[in-house]
Parts: sequence; structure tokens; C-alpha cells
Amino acid sequence: MKHKALSVGLATVAICAGSARAARAAENSGAKNVVVAVRAYRAAHEAQIIDEFVKLLSIPNVASDAANISRNAETIRAMLERRGFRVELLPTAPGRGPVVFGELDSPGAKHTILFYAHYDGQPVDTEKWIGTKPFVPALRTDSIDRGGKLIPFPNAPDSYKDDWRIYARSSGDDKAPIIGILVAIDALRANHIPMAVNLKVIFEGEEEDSSPHLEATVDAHKNLFTGDLLITADGPIDQSGRPLIFFGNRGVISVRLTVFGPLHPLHSGHYGNWAPNPAMRLAQLLASMKDADGRVTIAGFYDNVVPLGPAERKAIAEAPNNDALLLRTFGIAAPDGGGKSLLELLNEPSLNIDGMESGWTGAQAKTIIPDEATASLDMRLVKNAGPQQEFDALAAHIRKQGYYVIDREPTMAERLKYARIAEVTHDHGYPSTRTAMDLPVSQALMRAVDEGAGEPAVKLPLLGGSVPMYIFADLGLPVIGVPIANFDDNQHSPNENLRVGNLWKGMETYGEILAGLEWK
Amino acid sequence: MKHKALSVGLATVAICAGSARAARAAENSGAKNVVVAVRAYRAAHEAQIIDEFVKLLSIPNVASDAANISRNAETIRAMLERRGFRVELLPTAPGRGPVVFGELDSPGAKHTILFYAHYDGQPVDTEKWIGTKPFVPALRTDSIDRGGKLIPFPNAPDSYKDDWRIYARSSGDDKAPIIGILVAIDALRANHIPMAVNLKVIFEGEEEDSSPHLEATVDAHKNLFTGDLLITADGPIDQSGRPLIFFGNRGVISVRLTVFGPLHPLHSGHYGNWAPNPAMRLAQLLASMKDADGRVTIAGFYDNVVPLGPAERKAIAEAPNNDALLLRTFGIAAPDGGGKSLLELLNEPSLNIDGMESGWTGAQAKTIIPDEATASLDMRLVKNAGPQQEFDALAAHIRKQGYYVIDREPTMAERLKYARIAEVTHDHGYPSTRTAMDLPVSQALMRAVDEGAGEPAVKLPLLGGSVPMYIFADLGLPVIGVPIANFDDNQHSPNENLRVGNLWKGMETYGEILAGLEWK
Repeated sequence: MKHKALSVGLATVAICAGSARAARAAENSGAKNVVVAVRAYRAAHEAQIIDEFVKLLSIPNVASDAANISRNAETIRAMLERRGFRVELLPTAPGRGPVVFGELDSPGAKHTILFYAHYDGQPVDTEKWIGTKPFVPALRTDSIDRGGKLIPFPNAPDSYKDDWRIYARSSGDDKAPIIGILVAIDALRANHIPMAVNLKVIFEGEEEDSSPHLEATVDAHKNLFTGDLLITADGPIDQSGRPLIFFGNRGVISVRLTVFGPLHPLHSGHYGNWAPNPAMRLAQLLASMKDADGRVTIAGFYDNVVPLGPAERKAIAEAPNNDALLLRTFGIAAPDGGGKSLLELLNEPSLNIDGMESGWTGAQAKTIIPDEATASLDMRLVKNAGPQQEFDALAAHIRKQGYYVIDREPTMAERLKYARIAEVTHDHGYPSTRTAMDLPVSQALMRAVDEGAGEPAVKLPLLGGSVPMYIFADLGLPVIGVPIANFDDNQHSPNENLRVGNLWKGMETYGEILAGLEWK
Repeated sequence: MKHKALSVGLATVAICAGSARAARAAENSGAKNVVVAVRAYRAAHEAQIIDEFVKLLSIPNVASDAANISRNAETIRAMLERRGFRVELLPTAPGRGPVVFGELDSPGAKHTILFYAHYDGQPVDTEKWIGTKPFVPALRTDSIDRGGKLIPFPNAPDSYKDDWRIYARSSGDDKAPIIGILVAIDALRANHIPMAVNLKVIFEGEEEDSSPHLEATVDAHKNLFTGDLLITADGPIDQSGRPLIFFGNRGVISVRLTVFGPLHPLHSGHYGNWAPNPAMRLAQLLASMKDADGRVTIAGFYDNVVPLGPAERKAIAEAPNNDALLLRTFGIAAPDGGGKSLLELLNEPSLNIDGMESGWTGAQAKTIIPDEATASLDMRLVKNAGPQQEFDALAAHIRKQGYYVIDREPTMAERLKYARIAEVTHDHGYPSTRTAMDLPVSQALMRAVDEGAGEPAVKLPLLGGSVPMYIFADLGLPVIGVPIANFDDNQHSPNENLRVGNLWKGMETYGEILAGLEWK
């Protein structure tokens, strides 16, 4: 049933896109030619493009790895300068990667767009990568799940297949857009197609660490960040494989929660039944935070959340419902959420356990009562339910369960005074942001992406993931997302990968935006 | 108040011991001389004794480490043969350590005692050891907690202080008794004191892995295991520092429980609120197993448990109540158990979380929905509540929470069919055992230990920890425990250690048993 409804929705979108395409054809006769030109350039230069990408992916890029994160920034600076950008490395904090800022003017352009991506990646657990290593990029004939085999990177032109995958940390999240937009510029130039807009690129080095210094860095260089639109390229496209434009992001705050037991691990035979077990205490505490459907039971958690308006509800209804496909892909018999669809649920705040650790398990298990138990949580935030509000609600909930809440390890005196002690800390965090879908710039970008991708994009009011776009929204910039990575790219996990066809189509889309984005 | 009651109890014990001592003096004029002789021998040979011990402790001894566990067995064989034992290495399973069996006859002895200890140790997490490594034994001036400093092993006679500690895996659990009884024999011989009993030693290499092959090995060589008493030397002495004799052990079964989420970890932004989180599911499942007091809520868990009789209750009442000391030592404000004392609670079955793991935490945390969550549990067992009964009750409880329970990873078809799937497996496990305290041999051993240790031992009907003594009880042997290690030896944990004074007193106690244990 949902698929039928979906088909109708798609047809509607296709008709609109068709009309838009006709309208634009009158304004700009080169629309279709841009895609063709970028494709031809790419086909002729595949080996060179992938070589530049592989070199970038080979540099380890965990935000806290000072030496390597700096090497990433310098490499990107060189990539930009080769293309004539004026580049500045805006410092953030000692030992941290700079914000790489690049500027490229287009004579006669009326508008300026800012293009955001990040060059840092999630921490890696090398042992969990199958067959390859996170920073030694490798090519496979398909995803590992579908039996993709390792093959050498080819040298001949036009030899890459769309379903091939490049395995490496950040291949999808988020170095793909960096190579994508730079090659789009190369392709336009090679074909003597002028850019319709001035371009500023902003490549951040701390996004996966919750962007602790982006706001201060932007504030310190406000004069650089002027323009008419910010495009964020972070995130994956729709699970259906169709392109995606999104008009907002959830915010995020990460929390670390530790519950304490005896000062040292104790023998479970000699002290079991008597010494409190922190793993059991943590389990009981976490269990108190959600019901069986996954609904958060923390008092006040859903307070102040702005309900979806008619425009957002309509956009969601028209978007593909991929839930059945996703259930099959991920091996899930029944989702959380009490019957709501994924797209509906992504418009609500969430509480998620990222990880949990206590004592030892499996072959390393020891029959002990652990000394502490830790969980890492993340909360995704929506409009009007900001990081501090949700953190305060969580901390109040933990207190209500009888815990003495502190932000450090307890002293011995505290251990002897309080039966239940929880260390609860949080990172910087940031709020959600959302741009109106009916602005002229929003409409123009939708047209450009539909044309660049050669099919109507899925349009969503809010993406589930988080990028700190509130920083740019606060400068008065409309913020709209145009990602290119495949949804099954294992971002944030071992075996991250980018589908080659997504990179190719991404270049065409970005080429069309650069060459054809115009509005009044 | 409890301490007053305790003093009365001790006085009673002391009077009994006094009468016994008088009675034994008539039979054997050398009673006190044994202790003096062993002490003098030890003082003169400290460097040589510690050197032999350190060599043994230097051999890694995780049961699954085939090469090293075999080196342990060969080393112990040589130690026994040097002292004139007839030795057999009884094979257990490929890649596993043999049961080292040694026999030493005493001309004219009426009784034969069997002496059990184990030479394998718990797995090690080297990074959590402070300042030293598990298999590089080191000497400290006190425990780490009390500021003990690393010092070299001295060479001069009579130079070790009682409070010094030897840090190494298995220094307490359970290589201490092996060196303890062998040096006791050396000391008796050097002083020309004859042994009153024939001795058989049984040193196992798989105890910390739940002794999966001990029963079959003993069954296959029943003729070797004849005798009149089995002394198990595993475990620590009383927390008060007084010696301990125990007449039974809890049994144990270890369980591994895994709950499944999506096939791969998923981005918590894009799928949070929708994809079930296995860490949350595991937390909810574990939380359902105990109430806030730590009482197990699994139906049938306490069924068939034989309540304590008057003799056991009396023994417990007379034993020191160390709970206040333990709370202070371990930094616990309030214990589990709803007001019962530790000694009472150790006579009940227990369910304990050894460890818990899912996703990544702390600096390694990634904002993902993990693909699975695992807990390792152990259940300690008492008389008539055996491993299969308690495992079945646990599995039934998990089913009652809506889980499809299997003993392997689920297939894709199962993942798509069952909303909640738990993989639940268990090890071999074994039941509890208990010897009557009023047998003549029990009475004789209590006398010998009180004399050898120079103070009345604490007598307990049941020890909280587990050793597979049911195997010997099934052969008709009375089984009684005489451990020597300090209670704060961090057994099963990083920074395991043995207090030197405990080793010295253990040698004297074992010397007195060997030279003076007689009964009708």
C-alpha cells in the first residue's frame, strides 16, 4: 500500500521537475550540456581523479590526531590552490585541525554560495575492518555484503563501474564531497563552461568530534562567511538511491554516563549477592529511560518540541517510504516507534546508546563484580528542544532514580556516603536548524539538483543526522543539504565505503549547481 | 553488637582448641616444634624459596594457552620429582594442561590425604596492571592501595617482612599453596620430622576455565584418587586476617548472553528512534533479572535450595562479621541483600554480571546504533540448586521477556522473523558440595589448622567461591578447604598479589597438617 502511495508521490514530483526543467531550458540552454560535459571529463580522467582521492583518504583523520589532521588540511589547501582558490587555514585550537577556507570568484556572478564539508572522520577500530585497513583505500567490485571482491584500481579511461566501492574511512563521510566539487570545477573549466556563482568552501576538521571550535572560528572571521546560501554536503542520499535535498538537521549532544561499584573488581563468589554490581545498576538505569517501543520515558524529554507543520508533513508524505527495504537490508523484524515511519520518527528527538562497557566478556570474561560500568549516549535534537534542555532532563531523571550525580570520579568519602553515584558529562553539543522550503533560493536549488542528478530528488524538511549548521543559520544564511554518498556506506562504522556511481553523479550534480544555480 | 557476640564465639572456640591441644600434646610431643621448625627453615632459606616461586609465577598460565600451560605442568613435575614424589601427568584434552598427580608415601602412616590446588590463572588484561606485568613477578613493601613501593627481591636470610606483597597473576590464586606445601615438606625433612600421613597432590590446569575435564580425568584414574580426606587449598582466608577452614563451596555456571540489533552498526542520526538498539534491549533484559536490592527475580531461581541447618547457622554466627571493614575497604556505602550479612548471602545462589559490552564508549564512542550487545554472567550455586536447574530458569525468564532463545548467531531468516533474539550459551558448570563439620576427620583437621596457624581459624560451612570439589565428594572423600592467600589479593583481577606473611603462615599450617594430622 505504501508503495502505491509512493508511486503517486513520485509522479507528482516528476511532473513538477519536468515543468521546472522546461522553464530553465528557456533561461539557460546549457543545462543538459553541463551534465554531459562533466561526465565526459570524468570518464576521460578517472584514474587521475581517483588517485587524488586515494591520496586524501590515505591520511588518517581522527580529529584528535594532531599531526595527521594537520596533514589533511595542508593537502586540501594544495588541492584548492592548484585550482586557483584563495585559501586560508583558520586556526581552531592547539592540536586541532584548522577550518580550511577557500574562495573562488566568478566574474559577473550575482550570488555567492558557501559549500560545507568536513575532512575529519570517526575513530577507527582497525581490527573490525574486513580484509582492508581504514587508511589504505581499496577498491571492491561491490559492497562486502553483496560479495564484492578486492580488485586493483584500474588505469584505463572510462573503466570504473557504478557499483564498485572504495573502502576507506571518510570515503563517504565526508571526503567524497571535497573531491566531488573540485573535480566538478575541473570539468567545467575543461569544457569552458562558466560558473554562475561565486564559491566559498568551508572544510572542517572536527565535525565527528561535535565541532567544538567551529562556532568560535566562524565568529572570529565573520567577514569571510558572507553569502546567499550555504550548501552542506555531509550525509548520505536517500535509501532508495534517489538524490536528496534536505532543509534541516537534527542537533546532537553526546553524554557519558558511568556508574560505580566497589573500588576494585571483586571475586563474584566471595562477594556476589552483597557487593552492588555497577553493570546491573547501569542496566537498570538505562532500562528506566525507554519503554518497550523505544519511546523515551524521561520527564520533559518531548517538551517544547515544535510539531511538524503542513508543509513538512506533505514533504514527508511525498518522500519514498523505504522502511520495508531497510528492514530487509538490516535484518530487523520489527522497528521501534510504535508504528510510526522512519521519516516521521526522525523528526522527533531521540536517545540512543552508542556503547556500553563493564568488566570483561566472552573469552576474556572473569567471574568478578566490576568496579564500574559506562555507557556512551547520544541525543538527537529537534527545533526548540536544545542540548541543555535535553541534558538537564536526562540528569534530573538519573537523580530521580536515586543517584548522586557528579561530573568526575567520586572521592572515597562520596563512595562511602552515597549508595548510588553516577558520573554524567556531556560534550559541546548543538541545536537543530531548518530552512523554509519555499524560499526562491530553495526552489532554485531543488531545480538544479533535479537536473544535475537526472531524476527528481527526495526533498526532506529535516535529516536525522547532525551537522552544526546552526552556526551558519545564525549568520542569516539559508542552509540546505545536498549530499552524495550512498546510504549503505557504513559511515561511523568499520568498513566505510563510497559507491563509485554516487561519486560520479555527485560531480554532475555539483557541476550543475555551480554552472546553473540562479534565482532572483 | 555483632563484635561482642563474636568475642564470645571466639572464646568458645579457643577453649575447645585449648582442650584439643592438651589432648594432642599427650599423643605427639612435637606439635609446637613443627611450627618452630618450619619457621626456622623458611627464615634460613627465604631467597631460595622465593626464587623457586618466582620461576613458577613467571610462566603465563591462562588455561587456553597450550604451550605455556604445558610448561607450567612440566615445571611442577620437576618440583615434585626433586622432592621424591612419584609423578604422573594425567592428560585432559588436546591443547589443555594435564592434571599433575604426585604421590609421596610415609612409612607407617594410617591415613592418606589428597591435596588439591590449581596452577592455571584467570585471563589477564596487562594494561590494567599498575607498574608491573602479570607474569613478571615483583615485590612491593605493601599493597598498592596502601602505597606499597616496588623493591628488589632480597638475598639475605630472614629479611622478608610479613606485609610485603608479591605481585603476579596466580601469586594468590592458586600457585601459593603449591609452593607452600612443597616447602613445608622440605622443612620437615631438614628437621627430621616424619610425616603423619601419606600425601597425594592434585594440581589442575583448567580451574579458572570451570574445570571442563577434571571430572573425566578423575573418573579415568579412579584408582589414584583413593584416600581419607581431600584438602582444597584454593581461595582466600578470612577478611579479618584469621585463618579459615571451610567445609563446602558454591557451585558455578557461566553464561554468555547476546542480544541482536541491526546486521551492522547504524548511524544513530539516520536510524535512531526506529532501528532497535540491542544495548538498550540488553539493559532492559538484565534489569528484569534483579530487584533494587539485588534479589534475583527469575521465577524458580531459589526453588529447591536447602535452608541452612542449626550447625551451619551457629558456625556463621560465630564467624567474624567483617562487613563494616569490607564496606570501608571497597568504598561501598550500602550493600545489596536487604540487610542480610555477607556470610548469610554467600549461602544463597547468586546471579552476577561479569561484564557487558556493546558498541564503543568513551574516547572511542561513535554515534551509532550497535549491531549487538553481550553480557557474561555467572551464577553461584548452592546445595540442590544445580547448574542445569538455574540455567533453565534463566533461559525461561529470557523467553518470558519475549525473546526467541538460541545457542548460536541468528540466521537472516530468523532476524526477519523474530523481533527479539537472544543467543544464550553456558559452560560446563558444576554443583555445590558440603562436608559435615562433626566428622572425626573434620575435628582433627580443625585442631591441626588452629595449631599450625597459632590462632583459632574461622570455620565456615560454605565458601562463596567455587572449586569443583563435587568430583571428589562423589568418590566418597570428605572435602575440606584450607586456603592461605590474603583476602585482598585481587584474585581474578589486575594487580593480583600475595602477602608474604600469608605464605609463611601457610607453610607452617601445612607443615603441622602433614606432621600432626591424626584421627581414629
